[in-house]
Amino acid sequence: MRVLQVVLVVFFISNWSCKESESKDVEAETSEKVAVIEDVRHDLERIEPPHWWTGFKSENLQLLVHHKNIGNVINVDLRYPGVSLEEVHKAKSPNYLFLDLKIAKDAEAGQFNINFEIENDDDLIQTYELKSRKRPAEEYVGFDSSDVIYLITPDRFSNGDPANDIIYTPTKESKEVSTEVGALEENTIDRNENYSRHGGDISGIINHLDYVEDMGFTAIWPGPMLINDMPKGSYHGYAITDYYRVDPRFGTSADYIELSQKASKRGIKLIMDQIANHCGLEHWWMKDLPFEDWVNHQKQYEDDKDNWTWEKTTFSNHRRTANQDRYASQSDIVGLTDGWFVDAMPDLNQRNPFMAKYIIQNSIWWIETLKLGGIRQDTYPYPDKDFMADWAGAIMQEYPNFNIVGEEWSYNPLLIAYWQDGKENKDGYKSNLKSTMDFAMQEKVVKALNEEENWNTGLVHIYEGLANDFAYADPKNIMVFPDNHDMSRIYTQLDGDLTNTKMVLSYLLTLPRIPQIYYGTEILMDDFDQPGDHGLIRTDFPGGWEGDTVNAFTGEGLSDDQKEMQNYLKKLLNFRKQSKAIHNGDTVHFAPENGVYVLVRTSKDETVVHIINKNETPYELDLKRFEELNLKGKTLKNVITGNEIQWQDNLRLDSKGSLMYTSKTNE
Amino acid sequence: MRVLQVVLVVFFISNWSCKESESKDVEAETSEKVAVIEDVRHDLERIEPPHWWTGFKSENLQLLVHHKNIGNVINVDLRYPGVSLEEVHKAKSPNYLFLDLKIAKDAEAGQFNINFEIENDDDLIQTYELKSRKRPAEEYVGFDSSDVIYLITPDRFSNGDPANDIIYTPTKESKEVSTEVGALEENTIDRNENYSRHGGDISGIINHLDYVEDMGFTAIWPGPMLINDMPKGSYHGYAITDYYRVDPRFGTSADYIELSQKASKRGIKLIMDQIANHCGLEHWWMKDLPFEDWVNHQKQYEDDKDNWTWEKTTFSNHRRTANQDRYASQSDIVGLTDGWFVDAMPDLNQRNPFMAKYIIQNSIWWIETLKLGGIRQDTYPYPDKDFMADWAGAIMQEYPNFNIVGEEWSYNPLLIAYWQDGKENKDGYKSNLKSTMDFAMQEKVVKALNEEENWNTGLVHIYEGLANDFAYADPKNIMVFPDNHDMSRIYTQLDGDLTNTKMVLSYLLTLPRIPQIYYGTEILMDDFDQPGDHGLIRTDFPGGWEGDTVNAFTGEGLSDDQKEMQNYLKKLLNFRKQSKAIHNGDTVHFAPENGVYVLVRTSKDETVVHIINKNETPYELDLKRFEELNLKGKTLKNVITGNEIQWQDNLRLDSKGSLMYTSKTNE
Repeated sequence: MRVLQVVLVVFFISNWSCKESESKDVEAETSEKVAVIEDVRHDLERIEPPHWWTGFKSENLQLLVHHKNIGNVINVDLRYPGVSLEEVHKAKSPNYLFLDLKIAKDAEAGQFNINFEIENDDDLIQTYELKSRKRPAEEYVGFDSSDVIYLITPDRFSNGDPANDIIYTPTKESKEVSTEVGALEENTIDRNENYSRHGGDISGIINHLDYVEDMGFTAIWPGPMLINDMPKGSYHGYAITDYYRVDPRFGTSADYIELSQKASKRGIKLIMDQIANHCGLEHWWMKDLPFEDWVNHQKQYEDDKDNWTWEKTTFSNHRRTANQDRYASQSDIVGLTDGWFVDAMPDLNQRNPFMAKYIIQNSIWWIETLKLGGIRQDTYPYPDKDFMADWAGAIMQEYPNFNIVGEEWSYNPLLIAYWQDGKENKDGYKSNLKSTMDFAMQEKVVKALNEEENWNTGLVHIYEGLANDFAYADPKNIMVFPDNHDMSRIYTQLDGDLTNTKMVLSYLLTLPRIPQIYYGTEILMDDFDQPGDHGLIRTDFPGGWEGDTVNAFTGEGLSDDQKEMQNYLKKLLNFRKQSKAIHNGDTVHFAPENGVYVLVRTSKDETVVHIINKNETPYELDLKRFEELNLKGKTLKNVITGNEIQWQDNLRLDSKGSLMYTSKTNE
Repeated sequence: MRVLQVVLVVFFISNWSCKESESKDVEAETSEKVAVIEDVRHDLERIEPPHWWTGFKSENLQLLVHHKNIGNVINVDLRYPGVSLEEVHKAKSPNYLFLDLKIAKDAEAGQFNINFEIENDDDLIQTYELKSRKRPAEEYVGFDSSDVIYLITPDRFSNGDPANDIIYTPTKESKEVSTEVGALEENTIDRNENYSRHGGDISGIINHLDYVEDMGFTAIWPGPMLINDMPKGSYHGYAITDYYRVDPRFGTSADYIELSQKASKRGIKLIMDQIANHCGLEHWWMKDLPFEDWVNHQKQYEDDKDNWTWEKTTFSNHRRTANQDRYASQSDIVGLTDGWFVDAMPDLNQRNPFMAKYIIQNSIWWIETLKLGGIRQDTYPYPDKDFMADWAGAIMQEYPNFNIVGEEWSYNPLLIAYWQDGKENKDGYKSNLKSTMDFAMQEKVVKALNEEENWNTGLVHIYEGLANDFAYADPKNIMVFPDNHDMSRIYTQLDGDLTNTKMVLSYLLTLPRIPQIYYGTEILMDDFDQPGDHGLIRTDFPGGWEGDTVNAFTGEGLSDDQKEMQNYLKKLLNFRKQSKAIHNGDTVHFAPENGVYVLVRTSKDETVVHIINKNETPYELDLKRFEELNLKGKTLKNVITGNEIQWQDNLRLDSKGSLMYTSKTNE
């Protein structure tokens, strides 16, 4: 039992880079203060977060230590100016420790050793690093209504690096993953299987950022890219088995950082898909859970983990209204929040305070590491809702201009409203969540186009649906979308009607919202063969794989309809990119009449008029009803064709379709 | 030009009754102060309100005077202690005057003359009466969640007085109506015609108050009973042509008062159906409109009134969301509020301040005259909404314990919530309206029973629908109903399924709501022949007419199903009448599982358990899920059968149907 005296030598250098760090993780920075120590050691099996930063508003950091019998430690000690060890928590499992550190506001970046005194053995030493933050917190600007988000399923977009399709082939050696991941359980690719890995990766996205930018998207939301070391169906990424590592089949954390940097240079924000509700069944901690309540229904799982099946699982009741319901039984609330999402996804217990801190720190770690432009949080109503408010609050406290969108799949505007920060809920719930998802509008816009026009069918659904905005604290911060990775493709939902698809897109892109468009929508990707089949929805983007006969990036092999759609969307997006009226303008709309519905956005210098016309034959629109717009005599430009019109007494609508006009004619 | 000196003699008498007043209108009162004058005269064609009261919180009263050329008056004068004439307003029509009176808090009841000085002619004198209020304002207690309301279409419930079926037959002379109504345009009855008058009347309701009471209803809401002197289809009462007179085919105002008094003795509240949005096209003022903006689209009407048809009408756009929509165009708002409801119902312009006062005073006049237990206000979202708030506010100011329910036919809880007082609307709108209508629940309860049970179909609709209560300011004050006079009968909506109909009723009667049940529901009245046909929905109640072969009041001729339903509802209502748990208890419910949905109401001394079971074959309900109710070991009584059960581990549900248990077993 000896206490190693660790000599801390703190000094300042320029252009310094620690040889032991993952150098690709660290952006080269100049003229910063970094402290290093002489005896860098990493004795511990795992410490998380693997590093941290100075300069956060919150001075607290809790380190999870995982190491055989570390719970038997006699003493833990660290010495570093501005950093104190406040408390050491033992877990139920002897292989865990949780260390509460306090990092003073004036602490300098640098490394220090944490010393673990072990009975009858040498001390263990873990070198821990505090980095300096590269960017002022205010400059982490989240996605907003000036953006249009491109949602990508990474496995299905583009295979930029075939070498990482299968890890540990003789041709590939990745130091980063070798010690942590082991041989991945599902380590094959089969593009003919909808539920297998297809090989898409981060490099693939990086390679096509030019396409994303040209199309006019200003943000990307790739599905989750952390390790999903699951035996099958892991391609979607929602069964994370290591919250601090990128899945090697997608690339490395360096690749992820490169994606962020290159996207940023093109003005494209990077949104990370995070999951606080559940992990993958093969998560490393499932073999050695720290507490009895680390995951929900843990006993049931542990009693039977060797032959765990869906029949043994207590699933969530999925009765999400229990979160708001003033009459909800405890049994329903617990059934919702504690049940497992699926049998392969253990339900994390965020009421365990160590788990809560773990998730919050993990999110902040990635924001800081990737310089994120937003988070999309999965299955928002399923975790403990008070935790979710703490989580979002902790992030927003550190990054005041950030944005987070939570997924609540509900067609009920009451629930959409409930989760958005600023809503004055009667139960006092304050979510801290700036953005929610407009599934209600998604449903309505499909009905609006699919249904025949009548007094109470068709377009009235979106007219009245948009009217529900009065209940939202901040409609412009709500995400709207024609479809996403969990539902039938919009082109399929609209029965393959190109014009209707264009109408849906142009309408959504004109709304006071943050539009999200799923990759492939621009080329009419569909799932007609098996509507709603998840694997099929997430079809490979043509041109993303070497040898693809069709290439949507170049246009090669696309049908005329596909080209038309792609071109149409490109024009719309690039128009929207600079339209202040759409980004932040006022909104006014006019009830559908005779199959025509008019939505108008207005800023100081610009009016954008969006017309949906469902008439198959030419229709003369009497403009008298729109007098309040004060457009009479003005020249407007068709955003798609560039043609100009004079706004007078009538407007001839030649055929079914949407029209978008802008008052800015000279650009 | 002479000024008549009117001598006011004020003195106090007991048991006084003015010979000129409609003596049947006035309740005999003793020991009150009444002032009378010597020269009672009623020179004016019309003055409204026809009388008023002392002792209101508001000291203001505006009298509408209608008399040929009264606008040419030189001077108007009145002298009475505590009453001052504040202002005399002329209208555009020379035949109107509006007099602003101020009635001091300490003014005594009595009569006084109002003197109108006319150029080159004798003065006109109108004796006006201020009555003393018979009941403290606090004792006007409105319907609430302890009540169940019986909605009656007066023309179709019971013909108590065949003599008033056709007015001015040789056998009938009614002084009351002779001078005001003239020969009614539609003065026939034809029980074979769904849209003709059938002869039901106030006497018919009075005669059957014993039935209403026995059934267990505690409030009645008869459809509108004021004069509808319309050429056809007037039976429903929603085209009022005189806001101060009872339709003689329904009876007299004395009958109406008698109804109120007799109902009150049985503990039954009287709710009046009022319409602020529109009048009937044959309203007396339509021939001589006081201002240019007394009704909306007035010019259009006046330009063409001699051959007015629906084609010339500017109808309401019925886009009711414009009231809440933050993006509503002015054109849509005006289209909603100013358009006519139908061509035979001119749309009143409540933005005209004289119209506004007229409507408010009329409502208060009837509350005071009939000692109402509530108002049901028609087509709530159609009039100017700020006016509606003023209207409801003025009433609630005078009668703090009153209740008003407004009809917004919307399935959208956001709108239902918006109109209810206490909702903190973002636009600042404060409605002053205590009760709204739960069309949303009506729709969902039908779906819940009609749909096959599945994860997201069937009972989940009402479970999730009730969960929306979190958005309501005061759910217990919302009116719920299986159907009403404007929609298909519930038995028809449920495809003639008796058990389902019973389930709907027992569920609605257990909710934290004010239930309303339409007459005839208890005997399974239907509209299968032409579902939704308004005339058919409002079928005659059997036994209400002499000679009816079936008599639902006595049970004679009813089918077994009808008797079963009537008996079932009677038991439920009479149980509910004394159930504090249902009136004001807490609510908890458990998500539907395997076709079983449990709703529980709990007060200090009582637990009511309501179970909907959709299983056709016996089902064993595991009670473990309901542990939080703390019922284990307790004895519960079946409200319908009286059988007692022990709440243990399981409850056997023998067949499809609802079960209602109460913990009060010894009553």
